[in-house]
Amino acid sequence: MSHARSTSIQLASRPQGWPTPDNFTVASVDLPDLEAGQVRVRNEFVSVDPYMRGRMNDTRSYVAPYAIGAQITGGAVGRVIESRSGQLPVGTAVLHQHGWSDLAQGPADSFRAVPDVPGLSLSLRLHILGMTGMTAYAGLTAVAGMKPGETVFISGAAGAVGTAAGQIAKLLGAKRVIGSAGSAQKVALLTEKYGYDRAFNYKDGDVRGQLAKAAPEGIDVFFDNVGGDHLEAALDAFNDKGRAALCGAISSYNTTERAVGPDNMSNIITRGLTLKGFTLAAYLGLAPEFQEKMTAWFSAGKISFDETIVDGIDNTVDAFVTMMRGANTGKMLVRVGDAEK
Amino acid sequence: MSHARSTSIQLASRPQGWPTPDNFTVASVDLPDLEAGQVRVRNEFVSVDPYMRGRMNDTRSYVAPYAIGAQITGGAVGRVIESRSGQLPVGTAVLHQHGWSDLAQGPADSFRAVPDVPGLSLSLRLHILGMTGMTAYAGLTAVAGMKPGETVFISGAAGAVGTAAGQIAKLLGAKRVIGSAGSAQKVALLTEKYGYDRAFNYKDGDVRGQLAKAAPEGIDVFFDNVGGDHLEAALDAFNDKGRAALCGAISSYNTTERAVGPDNMSNIITRGLTLKGFTLAAYLGLAPEFQEKMTAWFSAGKISFDETIVDGIDNTVDAFVTMMRGANTGKMLVRVGDAEK
Repeated sequence: MSHARSTSIQLASRPQGWPTPDNFTVASVDLPDLEAGQVRVRNEFVSVDPYMRGRMNDTRSYVAPYAIGAQITGGAVGRVIESRSGQLPVGTAVLHQHGWSDLAQGPADSFRAVPDVPGLSLSLRLHILGMTGMTAYAGLTAVAGMKPGETVFISGAAGAVGTAAGQIAKLLGAKRVIGSAGSAQKVALLTEKYGYDRAFNYKDGDVRGQLAKAAPEGIDVFFDNVGGDHLEAALDAFNDKGRAALCGAISSYNTTERAVGPDNMSNIITRGLTLKGFTLAAYLGLAPEFQEKMTAWFSAGKISFDETIVDGIDNTVDAFVTMMRGANTGKMLVRVGDAEK
Repeated sequence: MSHARSTSIQLASRPQGWPTPDNFTVASVDLPDLEAGQVRVRNEFVSVDPYMRGRMNDTRSYVAPYAIGAQITGGAVGRVIESRSGQLPVGTAVLHQHGWSDLAQGPADSFRAVPDVPGLSLSLRLHILGMTGMTAYAGLTAVAGMKPGETVFISGAAGAVGTAAGQIAKLLGAKRVIGSAGSAQKVALLTEKYGYDRAFNYKDGDVRGQLAKAAPEGIDVFFDNVGGDHLEAALDAFNDKGRAALCGAISSYNTTERAVGPDNMSNIITRGLTLKGFTLAAYLGLAPEFQEKMTAWFSAGKISFDETIVDGIDNTVDAFVTMMRGANTGKMLVRVGDAEK
């Protein structure tokens, strides 16, 4: 049993617009001795995700806002380094939601053991084999009810959820998958690596026009990570009975002006469309189904992924903000590295 | 067998903004002799409905736009005055979709016989006992999935669909039904005659603020006939997992400027909301279920209704436009009257 100090990123104040370093405290926290049933974990990777921006606001949502002065919680993976629990011996690889710190400790049941496959980075449990992959799967299946033969449009397609969603849509039998991203390099990756049939750079101009050109026969399903002009473009491109799974709206997360809603909401009526917002919390029952399918696809070499890695827990806030600015391809992660303390 | 002339209201040009008399032709049409299997009907009532405005535009929709030079089609009721069909003898009361004319003729299977109950105006088949009532029923049940104990907000509540929807919601076990309308008189009628628990006049100011005050515990279901600021207000008032049945958007039907979409679309994600647009065409399978329930409620005296009647087929366009301006309470109808021709 030993004392330890953890570097913990805490919310200092609620960001107005884009978060700045002042909104966070990098605290050095003295960890108490473990109690019976508890474990201590050294994180290997910490996740930074768009949804976290919403939790920094004091607004009503499925999930409670982050508290001022408390650590930012969220996904992380690591290994048990001290244990007073028979369930999770030292060395066990674990996934958890304790969030932005190098060390995590608490009751063993707040950690979940994950398979520790040689040659497979634990980081994959934070994206393609974890919540991110499952968000893509749930959005396409349970939320949007995608059927084989349909045309699917995915916004923010080069991000962690988007790269997963494009591949899953094709594996589930989509006839055509169209993606939008924010650079020529990302657009190339979508068609060359991620199986997208068509892709465009939304920074090249008018999303409406570009989508209409990429989807001349219309779209049946829209998986939205961006909101704003992307949602508006999709409402124009939808075929009758189209369905949107609204997963994120990163275009508006850091704006302080009044958001401008779509000017074509009446298409929802005339075309019999369904817009359904979701957070994964409501679809956790899909976990066994997702695990089975994704494990099979992954083992068969059918799933590609990218990671954009920032080193050092001290750089977590930077990683978070640059991710929201679109600096990442695939999943943005913080690699904690070995502690010298 | 006799010749006859029909007064037929035809679309002359597509309205830009509010329709004007110039957009229509009141034509006197010579009807040919009946062919075998056909019937001729003298209409008693012709329906004017908000959805017709959409069909006057040349935009893609579930239903094809009205053709220039052709009669405006839509609901009407009347009696067979000449018949070459054994199915529909002279005198039979019928409902049909031939639309804006005093006489209608065609194959017997384009007319549907309706019960002819002494003391019950045939006009009811055009609203509370017909498509309008069924639209309200379908929107609440199949589209929005309303459950007993929920709070329901209905916009345009004093119109034909709204007066039906409020009563049906209560009969299906809604805990609280809230309505908006455009005059103090209508608002009073909602709570005094139509069973609404609370109502407000949207012309008194800020819909968002008035709805928040009327629904301090939030809303679970929104039945929208208006769109615009009403939809925006509902998105703010929704409880988690709330559902909207988008039936109409009369606030935007006659505007020529770019519609302003809701500024709070992101609530759809964070609260896990569902917005579903519909037209009755997709829900006709509910007819037996609706007929059974509505007949029972109506016979038990549990259903109130209002009609706003304009006399004379020549005044149909006026009736249509003043209905869209909100002049009606309950169902707006044109009474055709006896022909002198």
